[in-house]
Amino acid sequence: MSSTFGTLFRMTTFGESHGPGVGAVVDGCPAGIALSLPAIQAQLDRRRPGQSSLTTPRRESDRIEILSGLENGKTLGSPLALLVRNHNQHPGDYRAMADVPRPSHADYTYRMKYGVGAQSGGGRASARETLARVAAGSVAEQFLETVFGVEIVAWVSQAGAVTASMPDLANLTRTKVDGDAVRCPDRKAAAAMTAAITTAAAMQDSLGGVVSCLCRGVPAGWGEPVFDKLDALLAQAMLSIPAAKGFALGSGFSAAAMSGSEHNDLFVVEGQKLGTRTNYSGGVQGGISNGQIIFFAVAFKPTPTIGKAQRTVDYAGREVVLEGKGRHDPCVVPRAVPVVEAMAAMVLADLALRQAARSALVQANFPR
Amino acid sequence: MSSTFGTLFRMTTFGESHGPGVGAVVDGCPAGIALSLPAIQAQLDRRRPGQSSLTTPRRESDRIEILSGLENGKTLGSPLALLVRNHNQHPGDYRAMADVPRPSHADYTYRMKYGVGAQSGGGRASARETLARVAAGSVAEQFLETVFGVEIVAWVSQAGAVTASMPDLANLTRTKVDGDAVRCPDRKAAAAMTAAITTAAAMQDSLGGVVSCLCRGVPAGWGEPVFDKLDALLAQAMLSIPAAKGFALGSGFSAAAMSGSEHNDLFVVEGQKLGTRTNYSGGVQGGISNGQIIFFAVAFKPTPTIGKAQRTVDYAGREVVLEGKGRHDPCVVPRAVPVVEAMAAMVLADLALRQAARSALVQANFPR
Amino acid sequence: MSSTFGTLFRMTTFGESHGPGVGAVVDGCPAGIALSLPAIQAQLDRRRPGQSSLTTPRRESDRIEILSGLENGKTLGSPLALLVRNHNQHPGDYRAMADVPRPSHADYTYRMKYGVGAQSGGGRASARETLARVAAGSVAEQFLETVFGVEIVAWVSQAGAVTASMPDLANLTRTKVDGDAVRCPDRKAAAAMTAAITTAAAMQDSLGGVVSCLCRGVPAGWGEPVFDKLDALLAQAMLSIPAAKGFALGSGFSAAAMSGSEHNDLFVVEGQKLGTRTNYSGGVQGGISNGQIIFFAVAFKPTPTIGKAQRTVDYAGREVVLEGKGRHDPCVVPRAVPVVEAMAAMVLADLALRQAARSALVQANFPR
Amino acid sequence: MSSTFGTLFRMTTFGESHGPGVGAVVDGCPAGIALSLPAIQAQLDRRRPGQSSLTTPRRESDRIEILSGLENGKTLGSPLALLVRNHNQHPGDYRAMADVPRPSHADYTYRMKYGVGAQSGGGRASARETLARVAAGSVAEQFLETVFGVEIVAWVSQAGAVTASMPDLANLTRTKVDGDAVRCPDRKAAAAMTAAITTAAAMQDSLGGVVSCLCRGVPAGWGEPVFDKLDALLAQAMLSIPAAKGFALGSGFSAAAMSGSEHNDLFVVEGQKLGTRTNYSGGVQGGISNGQIIFFAVAFKPTPTIGKAQRTVDYAGREVVLEGKGRHDPCVVPRAVPVVEAMAAMVLADLALRQAARSALVQANFPR
Repeated sequence: MSSTFGTLFRMTTFGESHGPGVGAVVDGCPAGIALSLPAIQAQLDRRRPGQSSLTTPRRESDRIEILSGLENGKTLGSPLALLVRNHNQHPGDYRAMADVPRPSHADYTYRMKYGVGAQSGGGRASARETLARVAAGSVAEQFLETVFGVEIVAWVSQAGAVTASMPDLANLTRTKVDGDAVRCPDRKAAAAMTAAITTAAAMQDSLGGVVSCLCRGVPAGWGEPVFDKLDALLAQAMLSIPAAKGFALGSGFSAAAMSGSEHNDLFVVEGQKLGTRTNYSGGVQGGISNGQIIFFAVAFKPTPTIGKAQRTVDYAGREVVLEGKGRHDPCVVPRAVPVVEAMAAMVLADLALRQAARSALVQANFPR
Repeated sequence: MSSTFGTLFRMTTFGESHGPGVGAVVDGCPAGIALSLPAIQAQLDRRRPGQSSLTTPRRESDRIEILSGLENGKTLGSPLALLVRNHNQHPGDYRAMADVPRPSHADYTYRMKYGVGAQSGGGRASARETLARVAAGSVAEQFLETVFGVEIVAWVSQAGAVTASMPDLANLTRTKVDGDAVRCPDRKAAAAMTAAITTAAAMQDSLGGVVSCLCRGVPAGWGEPVFDKLDALLAQAMLSIPAAKGFALGSGFSAAAMSGSEHNDLFVVEGQKLGTRTNYSGGVQGGISNGQIIFFAVAFKPTPTIGKAQRTVDYAGREVVLEGKGRHDPCVVPRAVPVVEAMAAMVLADLALRQAARSALVQANFPR
Repeated sequence: MSSTFGTLFRMTTFGESHGPGVGAVVDGCPAGIALSLPAIQAQLDRRRPGQSSLTTPRRESDRIEILSGLENGKTLGSPLALLVRNHNQHPGDYRAMADVPRPSHADYTYRMKYGVGAQSGGGRASARETLARVAAGSVAEQFLETVFGVEIVAWVSQAGAVTASMPDLANLTRTKVDGDAVRCPDRKAAAAMTAAITTAAAMQDSLGGVVSCLCRGVPAGWGEPVFDKLDALLAQAMLSIPAAKGFALGSGFSAAAMSGSEHNDLFVVEGQKLGTRTNYSGGVQGGISNGQIIFFAVAFKPTPTIGKAQRTVDYAGREVVLEGKGRHDPCVVPRAVPVVEAMAAMVLADLALRQAARSALVQANFPR
Repeated sequence: MSSTFGTLFRMTTFGESHGPGVGAVVDGCPAGIALSLPAIQAQLDRRRPGQSSLTTPRRESDRIEILSGLENGKTLGSPLALLVRNHNQHPGDYRAMADVPRPSHADYTYRMKYGVGAQSGGGRASARETLARVAAGSVAEQFLETVFGVEIVAWVSQAGAVTASMPDLANLTRTKVDGDAVRCPDRKAAAAMTAAITTAAAMQDSLGGVVSCLCRGVPAGWGEPVFDKLDALLAQAMLSIPAAKGFALGSGFSAAAMSGSEHNDLFVVEGQKLGTRTNYSGGVQGGISNGQIIFFAVAFKPTPTIGKAQRTVDYAGREVVLEGKGRHDPCVVPRAVPVVEAMAAMVLADLALRQAARSALVQANFPR
């Protein structure tokens, strides 16, 4: 496994959905940052199952505990170990599936890779693993907010065939996003999404969707060409989320059909520095932030575990009809919102430190 | 900078477009692999400027030289240093742009990050940097072909508004792809793409596009959850290519609008192992290859340097009209094809070694 | 901080001596390895304070808990999270020292680096941090023992001025080592060491020492030149242990005074392969194991916290007389034995996997 | 292989002694640093064979060429590729040894690890590989000198049985060190060392030795506990040098025999900050620099290739008498001096950037 992410600001996650607990070790967070546990808990609650009728009824209280790295509410500079105990384990739900690899799930590939069975493999490929990312990402986010004033807001921009209009990126907040259980700030689209998800759920089926995300307040200069470009690390971070199928920065795939004269973001004066008239770049040029709002989208496939009957085969190759059990969301995107925010925060916090190393040393000595 | 990519099979690249040379050090390639220099050169030639009327007239012979790691045509297990000297440098072309950051290019962000000017910064953000990736990627590819029989083929699936039909993934070859200068195997679409690119070039403008890529022969089990999943590393690799804007695995963004019962790839018996009836997954489930053909798409924006007049501002904030000079492609996708193949090869070679470590040790002792 | 060690077989540690707990996440251990909790606990007990009159009276039960990665006693291939709760915290003992940096301790450097005070900084620089290493190292050790039959045994070869004779490396066991509380298998030397330590303790003083270590059963071929050579990683691992001052492989510093004709280990036939007549190399040549017994020594300084009065200055530069409180060992080496073993195991497990990646792939296809 | 060293300030080396060339890519050096090629060349010349009667007569001009990353004498922030072509290749010298593994050399272990023969394997294990380190280390050194005023000076403190007195660490310079070909600033010891080496050479034998090194001007705060402690990384760096057998920081192995009250470095006021009365710590406490002079020693074994007849066996197990040919130094330490300096510089440059990341960000916002 490769459960560590980041170069200077790093998280290492652990935990199966059906083991004792899930958590993360965050290493590299500078000392002296005031850390709010309620802020971490708030993000965990946004990810938590059972929060609305749109999500799985699996109930977990998901209380965060900090085992190290914090004293008097401030970071010590040492690793922060974050732990959430599992309580609502129903391994029995999965026993029926032990002989049948669930289609488009990780059962088959985990068995081929690790030689371990479905029940155990499912534990690490489970969406529950993302809980650790959300906890760690909240630490990154608080660091970014405290030191740079960076704000990160994700929202559902598509669920099934329903797409939302583009929000006002300069003013969108999590409060607005959370105004509807589906987490789409376009209320009209939100209603249609809710209807689509409810219909799919009633049919024992599921739907895919898209989560979009913005990062405000990122200064120009973050991103490490040529392989750890800001957009490259965001792409890795987002595709590492279970069920993600695509990543698009700014104009994304629509850039393919455009001409350079349309797509180029012309420079304009913006206070003491340069801004751009448009933002097809999504805030990143040459893999480095340009001071504009960073925005990107992440596509998610429909939840593979569905109640609807599926004609497939078991590990021995015998034809079976599978009717998925267990407690799963009919559409993952509302709960994926804080996960996308968390992964964005991890990428930014790491690149912030990496740029700080360079600028601090040299600019102090050679002001330009 | 972060110029090293990979954990066990790694490349470290170097070189500016206007310095003495560009190259890569490939470390971690196992010993005893027969390496063909003509095969490396062939991929470099497919990336080389000036190969057709669709590409920049900058002429470079791009002859590869191997400085270490090879003896009697076989790898020694030590680092392979690959070097291509620059010959056709026209730094003068860029002097006029020294005071004006080119819109949607990396001039501005490099200056903000490194404090160095456009001419130099442009050197590393230049497409010429990808030459090093192609050379290194060809080593990875030869390793994969020799040991596993893996084949990697990329092609242009969109240029401007023209989209191609899906080719037969089981039988597509580079020869078929190269049958047309635009590198689209759908000949009807290829003709329309050529017309669109020619028109854009005539208008001193540029076009975006999409490169798609398949990997055949990858066994089940490659990919390192949870952060170095196969699709996550492919996404990082692809977004690190200059001008890339998006990545999509298998169904990609279209998965968002689908239901689980449509999207799930039902298992079927395929010889001695399990296959899938459909392949919306793009050959990857839970971040691990499942033995099916891996395929994905990469969106590229239109080349930002265009001859067409653009109203922008210089670094001092003064309004200027910029007419780009220098020698640039009107559409990057035909030459991006070998770059996409190279990056895919780097990702796969690294994950192949990482899985080999696990399977070798344990399966030898605990056959399952 | 940099709390992760290893490339494929990795540990990430966390925890302050005076926080809720100390632990480690072990990532990269192959699946299917039977893991014995009592074996982990046994090594923790050998490191535990309060086990004999030679060690600090701080009492900790140090019970290990595994939070993830294990099912039915076998590893799942996913991260193993190991946790030990702290119980016997006496932060009050350290309050008196908050204004005075303890000489040769990390108080001053932690404050300079992180800007945090002595009490907190002391937490991570404390010997208690090594508990996490011992737990993780025991996992590595069990992996090495199960798959390769590797055995690792460390012992005290010097305490203060008392040096022990070289034991029979082929037959030394932990049982023999533990036959005396000072962990020196040379019983005559052990008695002298005990007397020296007891005398130092009575004078409120402390002593340094040397821990030697052997690794039996390591096949030829482990170690990754040129920077991750087996001896280079052992040196890093050992110097990262608190209070370590030196590392010596095989002949170590005595090699300096020798001639090549004395020092060279001449080859001899040893069953089906080559062995060496002598082993000044300590089992490593060119950074790679040669199949002989690996052995090395680690020097430790005397415990810096002593009760004896010391004339030093506080952070404000005022002269003070410091009499150390808190509970500290008069000589660290007996308890450092399992820590040295643990770090050796981490190095070997990682290099075993790295070599397996290479040999598996290539030797399967190109038998030599 | 693992040919990359460092986290932020990194080098990747390549090259066999008998291939086309040897070199390094230095990535992560901040932009805007004035780089002197003559300074790099000067260090290469100090490492170069044939510089005195004490060294191998192999003659190499070793001219450095910079292929990238530099413009108008200043670093661009992009990778610096450094290349030295090989000219004086005598592979024939080694042919006789192709069937016989040279005792205590890497022939046997390279063959066991990579499956490649002595001639090729010897290429990467050769001392010539250190040339790349010296070139890269000189870049690191110039960075450290420019930004921090750090000075690094190594010298020969032992050759064979001859040991030198401790020099005045505050005032030792490379000029003083180079006053004698053996590079020992204690002239009386130098003469004895020269005699000992000359005698050994005359007997077709070789001698070991010790190189000591100091680093002046390192501020308090460099080093990343718990695994990338300053001393731990120095130990790895030094043991990765061919023929190194041991590492000792400050008091080193002599600390073992001392008591805490002797060994503790009591604090004193030193200008605006705290200094220490003694420096047994060698400038590092808890793995972090404390602002005092850093000093350490590295033990080297006698050159294993000797002309003197050795009774050993060939790969097939047949007894042979081996008389080494090829051109080798009778004692490696005079030429190891710039290698030790280079590796120290690489460690310090990397840790400088890693600490800068932390201090820049947080101290700017939370001055302490």
